[in-house]
This record gives sequence, C-alpha cells and structure tokens, in this order.
Amino acid sequence: MRLIFLGTGGTYPSMKRGVTSIAVQLRSEVLLLDCGECTQRQLMGSSVSFMKISRILISHLHADHFLGLPGLIQSMSLNGREDKLVVLGPEGTADMVESIMNLGHFDCGYEVVSQELAPGDYIDAGTYGITAANADHTVPSLAYSIEERTRLGRFSLDKALALGIQPGPLYSRLQCGETVEHKGIMVHPEHVIGEPRRGRKVVYTGDTRKCSSVTDLARAADVLIHDATFDSSLEEQAVKYGHSTARQAAEVAVEAGVGRLFLVHISPRYDDSSRLTAEAVEVFAKSMVPDELSEYVIDLPD
Amino acid sequence: MRLIFLGTGGTYPSMKRGVTSIAVQLRSEVLLLDCGECTQRQLMGSSVSFMKISRILISHLHADHFLGLPGLIQSMSLNGREDKLVVLGPEGTADMVESIMNLGHFDCGYEVVSQELAPGDYIDAGTYGITAANADHTVPSLAYSIEERTRLGRFSLDKALALGIQPGPLYSRLQCGETVEHKGIMVHPEHVIGEPRRGRKVVYTGDTRKCSSVTDLARAADVLIHDATFDSSLEEQAVKYGHSTARQAAEVAVEAGVGRLFLVHISPRYDDSSRLTAEAVEVFAKSMVPDELSEYVIDLPD
Repeated sequence: MRLIFLGTGGTYPSMKRGVTSIAVQLRSEVLLLDCGECTQRQLMGSSVSFMKISRILISHLHADHFLGLPGLIQSMSLNGREDKLVVLGPEGTADMVESIMNLGHFDCGYEVVSQELAPGDYIDAGTYGITAANADHTVPSLAYSIEERTRLGRFSLDKALALGIQPGPLYSRLQCGETVEHKGIMVHPEHVIGEPRRGRKVVYTGDTRKCSSVTDLARAADVLIHDATFDSSLEEQAVKYGHSTARQAAEVAVEAGVGRLFLVHISPRYDDSSRLTAEAVEVFAKSMVPDELSEYVIDLPD
Repeated sequence: MRLIFLGTGGTYPSMKRGVTSIAVQLRSEVLLLDCGECTQRQLMGSSVSFMKISRILISHLHADHFLGLPGLIQSMSLNGREDKLVVLGPEGTADMVESIMNLGHFDCGYEVVSQELAPGDYIDAGTYGITAANADHTVPSLAYSIEERTRLGRFSLDKALALGIQPGPLYSRLQCGETVEHKGIMVHPEHVIGEPRRGRKVVYTGDTRKCSSVTDLARAADVLIHDATFDSSLEEQAVKYGHSTARQAAEVAVEAGVGRLFLVHISPRYDDSSRLTAEAVEVFAKSMVPDELSEYVIDLPD
C-alpha cells in the first residue's frame, strides 16, 4: 500500500502546492482521495498509472476538492479507458458528476457512476472496505477510512516440522484452510497457522474541524491524513471556516492512536510549512507535512 | 503589450506542457486566450496579476480550452474581486458558464457575464478591439484578433521649430488635435503631426485546420499564435481531428504577412518540440514554440 501526495494545498493553488488529491495505490488498483484542479497533470509526473484508478472519493463539494474530475475523466477517455469509474461523495455528488459530464463537447468512452454516501456507510470492495464518517466542515463533508481485510495468520514452519510435516503440498492445503491427514493424524490449519493478521488502514479527513467522529474513524489507523489548514495562532479562523490547526490534527492522532500523521490542506499563506510541522510534532512525534509528489509506503503490519 | 504563455500543450497536459492558455497584458488590463485546466496555478507563477483579467476569450468548448475557468473564477472571488468578468466564446458558452457557476457549493462575489460571438463579430473595447472569425475545427470554434486602436502620428519637432513654435503648451494642444494660432498664423495638427500609426495586433487561432478565414484575420498581425498540434508526418491526423501541422501554421504566417509566429497546442506526444520548430522555420523564419511561462513583448510599431 502506497500513498502518493499529488496535491497538499488548500483553498487555491500556490506555485508550491497544488490543491488536494492523494492517490492510494493498492495491490492492483488505485483510489483517489479528492481530486482538485491539476490532479491529472500531477498524476502524469507521478509513478501512478492514472488508468488504474477505480474509485475517486470526494470529501465535499468545494472546488479545491473536485475540479480536477472533468479533466481527468476526459483524459482517461482519450486514452482509451473502458473500465467503469466510480465517484463517491456526500449528497450533491450525483448532480455534480452529471454537470461535469455535460460540460462542452464530450462523449465519454466508458461508464462513470456516482454514488452518494452518508456517514456510517460501508462499501465492501473485496480485498478492502471503505467506511464514510461525518466530518465537521461548513458544508456536508465526509471522512473516509480505507481498510484492508484481515489476512491469514503466519504459517509456523517450526510447528509444522514438529508435527512431522515436511515442506510440500500439505503446506499449501493447510494455508488454504484445509484440514489434512498426515501419517494417520488429522492436522487442522490452526495447529500451524497463527492468529489472523489485520490489514492496513488509512484515514483521510477531508476538510474538518477537530471532531470525535473523525477520531473514532481513525482509531488505530496506520496512517491519518488530516486537515491542517492553519497554525495554532489562527485557531479562531480554523473554527470559523471549518478547518483544523496542525496542533489539533496531532491531538486527533494521539487520541486515535494512529501510526503516522500527514498534515494536508495547507493554506497558501504558508510558503514554509515548518511552523505547522513543529507544532504538530510537539504533540505527536510522527507528524509531517508531505512534499508535493512525495510517496509513503505503508508496510504490512506483522 | 506582452504575451505570457501559461500553457502551450494540446488535448491533455504532460509534465512538460500544460493545456492552453495565453495571457495578453495590455496597458491596464489582461485578456486571457483560452483557459485550460491549471491556468490559475500557472498565473500564480507568472508576472501577471490574475485579478486584472477583464475578459476571457474561449475559442471552443473542448475541455483543454476552458476547464480552468471554474477554479480561476472562484479564486478571484476568494481574493475579493468585485469587478465584472466577461467570458466570450462561440455558441454554447453561456450554457457552459452557467454550469460551472453552479458546480458544488459556491457563491461568487462578483458578476460573471458570458457573451456568445459569431464569426465577424467585433467588440469595441475602447483602446482596442476584438474581432472573431471562423476557425475550422471539429466543433464550432473561433479565432480572435486583438487590435489596438490607431495611434496619433509622430510629432515632428523639426517641423514645429521650422514654423517657429518653441516647445511649450502649444505642442500639447496640437497633439490633442487642436488648431492653434502662432504669430498670426493658423497651425493645424497635420502640419506637425505625421500619419496616424497603427496599433499592435495579435491573432490567436484556437484549434483549427489551415483555413482562409484565419489567414484573412491574421493579415499583417504583429503576432500570430497558431495551432501546431502535429508535425507534417501526421498531416492526415491533423486534417481528421481539425488541427494544423507546424508547417501549415508557418504557411499561414507567410500568406498573412505576420511579424512573428508562435506554435501552440503541441501534442503531448512531443517531449521535444524541435522537430515542429524546424519544419516551421523552413517556411517562415520567425517561428518558434514558446516555453511554458515564457513572455514576449510586442513593441509599438513605428
């Protein structure tokens, strides 16, 4: 699982930071978290194949979070895409998608489906699931968790050998959950395979004030990507405009017990984001403002 | 008069070239020729004040020519713009503008007016005029000329002195077109002021095949900015998709007798545009592919 920070700025772009979009590279597909203007150009400069994007998760319908959609959708069509694309988002998403599909002269070569979600909705996507939760912004806004399914426990070579089973076809059958017979003894998978191991979990807040629904969603996530539009000296503004300070984001990271915090939606006023990093790190050491086009690999937990 | 090449690529962006937008800096206002996605970010990195944009001229309603509008319009509003903004374009422009003003949650703090033009339409903008002409593309498409008004002729100090008039208030009055009396002689402005001098003229084709309506519009322009999507080996494709080759653009430049040719709407297939430049220069020496964010000053003609 790999995160690619395509755009980490908020409100409008600066030369330093594009507006919000983060790609999540899964085993054989890519999810996009928001899709601000210029996302397609950022994708061209990244290691992500933009044709592999299966779902785009829109947090809310402010322009800096979705204006990259029409260009990206059209470029995928120009490049011969045939696979369905799903755009997920809060109420209003279906209307927005319909509008952007009808801008100017354009016939799409594949199906674009919109799906409106409410807080608490869960999508089972096979190897992973998507959960939507309420974010606390000035307009209806969703935070998302992406969580891989629980994996099989670790196979214990030692235990298998102690039972007298040598490496070979029986190992595969046990790993597939089958009970096998070995020299007259029935060996069950749980004799040689450990506890199921959890998958990886990423939570993205979109634009939000510090709030408990996001903290709950982020519980024990490997990575939390949180709104950090302002530094603490502008906390009043953060509350007024439905955003968080870097310190508040770090407080959520601590309360939710996450592994790592990325601060995004940085206001264009910050040419230098070190002030934001500094105040977050004081609260939660593993905090950082990702550079544009930087990548982060989330290893499988043991 | 200054041109700023914000985006010079066609169809979809590459890392090297953004899609089309060119700013024309006039004395106290800026015109934008097309407004592809990412134009606002490019403006942030240029010397142009994006708040000074008075009119945006859209050539046609393919996404790579107008998808930068909603983001730019919204960012102007977030930055406190109060002045009216006019979006000009071919049929369909009014619908497109209405759609983009209604995307997501957005209240615009100033007036955005759309104005649909037909080939031959002329807009008198005071110190300059805009003429629309038919371009030959796959959808309704306009080429534009921007031409400054004729300026007063040059004041001849020699002639004034020969008439015995010394530098002073009479000079200003003559330059304002007044007939003055000097030592009993009536001096008319034409006695000391030369022939009116033409203003500067820029022509932008948008997407087009080589065609006579564009050549006619471009007659004697200081600068022609012409579609040059392909090189000559792809001439069939150029015809099929309603574009020009670099050579064809140069032929138009020669036939129209322009001062300088800029080749734009470069296909993303060209990492290196030297092939396009080379074939244009063979036909018309003053041809070039402008670099992104490069600027070109058009001096006043004598």
